[in-house]
Amino acid sequence: MEEPGSIRPGGRTARVRAAVLRAAGDVLAERGFAHLDLTDVARRAEVGKTTVYRRWGTVTGLVADLLTDMADQSLPRARTGSLEGDLRANARLVQRTLADPRQGNLFRAVIAAATCEPRTTEALHRFYDTRVREWAPCVEEAIDRGELPAGTDAEEVVRAVSAPLYYRLLAAGGPLDEATADQAANAAVAAARAGAFVR
Amino acid sequence: MEEPGSIRPGGRTARVRAAVLRAAGDVLAERGFAHLDLTDVARRAEVGKTTVYRRWGTVTGLVADLLTDMADQSLPRARTGSLEGDLRANARLVQRTLADPRQGNLFRAVIAAATCEPRTTEALHRFYDTRVREWAPCVEEAIDRGELPAGTDAEEVVRAVSAPLYYRLLAAGGPLDEATADQAANAAVAAARAGAFVR
Repeated sequence: MEEPGSIRPGGRTARVRAAVLRAAGDVLAERGFAHLDLTDVARRAEVGKTTVYRRWGTVTGLVADLLTDMADQSLPRARTGSLEGDLRANARLVQRTLADPRQGNLFRAVIAAATCEPRTTEALHRFYDTRVREWAPCVEEAIDRGELPAGTDAEEVVRAVSAPLYYRLLAAGGPLDEATADQAANAAVAAARAGAFVR
Repeated sequence: MEEPGSIRPGGRTARVRAAVLRAAGDVLAERGFAHLDLTDVARRAEVGKTTVYRRWGTVTGLVADLLTDMADQSLPRARTGSLEGDLRANARLVQRTLADPRQGNLFRAVIAAATCEPRTTEALHRFYDTRVREWAPCVEEAIDRGELPAGTDAEEVVRAVSAPLYYRLLAAGGPLDEATADQAANAAVAAARAGAFVR
């Protein structure tokens, strides 16, 4: 395992990692977690099999690293100046991601794997923790501006925006369109204003 | 395949079905969808293998029938007299189900299977449609009483109660306790009152 400091962006190590994670994401999106295999990923990524086994060890190790990379690569929070604007931007970003064929399948595959793989579950929770912390300042600033009650749990408000979109994707079905995203954002704002997320 | 009318409650056909679905649920909860096997289910249910193959055909057929049975067996909606009371009862029912080790694992397994099995996806969507239709009158009656804006989408309000609980179970993690359930119900009521679910 390399020290984090040794992975220079653009260096050989970073290029290998990018190629392997891209190939792993392709397999997950096309075929699902059950078909993820380190030898196949190495072949697709045109990277030596030994390198892949030495660096990632197992498919769960590879998925955990993919989730770390997805958190690192994800877009920064919006700064529209209003809580509605920021949470609508968040909802639309989540909706576009889940409605995108490759990304939607990738999330489905990783979430399915997490239902029975404790290490993937932990990596998935870390991914959402990172995303929620990135967007929580949108809510914290609204509390500071007096738009939301003091004591509002900013992270819970951010989670409330995503929840209806993931519920459609994974459980109940139904369209995952922009109107769904806007409804999710509006509902979270209305509930937050009414004090539903005060700790 | 038997005609529905021929399955008498308490009859042999119903007893066989109950034993097979119980065994299928046990395997899903203990080991997950990947380990579901009709021969193993027949053995656990103490039912002839030929009967199981003739009646359910495939593991996806068996899971679809299990979901139909889960929808049939699920509890009727609450009638507390208030929207808050009804939706809180709904949230606590969902929370208790998902927090129960066997039921929570069963839902995780079926949802994981649905991410890559179109027939299971359809059966899962039918299950949630049935549950949402059972509870929608709680919201419709609140609209009739003038507690919620006219034009509120009753089924969306019911879905909004479940969404944060499933989001925790499947994606973001976090406690699945009674406080989480009550927060989900309160947020849905507040958002509905503010008109966030008006079509």
